Amino acid sequence: MDFRVRASTKEDCRDISRMIMELAVYENMPDQVKISHEELERDGFCQNPFFECLVAEVPEEHKSKDGHTVVGYALYFYTYSTWRGRCIYLEDLYVMQEFRGKGIGKSLLSKVAAVGKEKQCARLNLSVLDWNTPSRDFYAAKGAQDLTDSEGWHFIRFDGKNLDSLANEAPKD
Amino acid sequence: MDFRVRASTKEDCRDISRMIMELAVYENMPDQVKISHEELERDGFCQNPFFECLVAEVPEEHKSKDGHTVVGYALYFYTYSTWRGRCIYLEDLYVMQEFRGKGIGKSLLSKVAAVGKEKQCARLNLSVLDWNTPSRDFYAAKGAQDLTDSEGWHFIRFDGKNLDSLANEAPKD
Repeated sequence: MDFRVRASTKEDCRDISRMIMELAVYENMPDQVKISHEELERDGFCQNPFFECLVAEVPEEHKSKDGHTVVGYALYFYTYSTWRGRCIYLEDLYVMQEFRGKGIGKSLLSKVAAVGKEKQCARLNLSVLDWNTPSRDFYAAKGAQDLTDSEGWHFIRFDGKNLDSLANEAPKD
Repeated sequence: MDFRVRASTKEDCRDISRMIMELAVYENMPDQVKISHEELERDGFCQNPFFECLVAEVPEEHKSKDGHTVVGYALYFYTYSTWRGRCIYLEDLYVMQEFRGKGIGKSLLSKVAAVGKEKQCARLNLSVLDWNTPSRDFYAAKGAQDLTDSEGWHFIRFDGKNLDSLANEAPKD
């Protein structure tokens, strides 16, 4: 099937927002999603965007059961390693169920890697849930290393009240 | 001891570069450091910086054995959660050995949290090595969650030849 991978525009935010929810449902955490397409428009399409996003689009004649032509997305941003410098981080990679197995996910991933290389990034990082074997196999098959397994890196997070109280302890300027 | 936490300037990059190496030695991976102060100056002090950095400074009369007054740093950048929106990521938090136990690390961490709140970030994220019990306890004591333990998130990375071959498979525009 022919499809096209392109940079997203502000007009894609409703489709991206829809697919963010579909992905959260797949990850069994739909109640975690607190973001709206307005926030995506504000944060992704401003002067100094917090993220960039690619979308996969199929021709009108191949639209989804529900009439969608934007059927996948890859949302990423730039991070920094104090050992290696510029890196690119793939936050989400998603292809709608009925469009899987056609190379769309692979094209989105490769394109993110190419964008990273253009920006002189030394690494493409991402994270997966340990039970998500299909994704872990997909990345491993392409040569990715699991640094949690090999080096013992753990994700740590402050949010909600913990983040507030931490911030309140900050020295005043 | 009195100390001051302030935003870094281009002139701090030599000190930051020195401490990046000290931290890598502590983490038993000094050979991993491939970054120079010139790269830090280029990537952190450009129009669209890849990172921001706070430094902790002591008065001249309390300078280190080797004559340093910049004795700690916190390097961070902004990331994005498709569930919660803007986040801040603490890449490195470091205080020189001879200045530990004086609340400098805590002040740097709190200040990063405060910067995140100012920017409407919902989360402060970071990562630690599993053997680094002092750091894990430090963050846990302040209410951080370990998402690798609680939800099973793993770090995945493409770099070197794997990243190159992935990028080379990208659909051409």
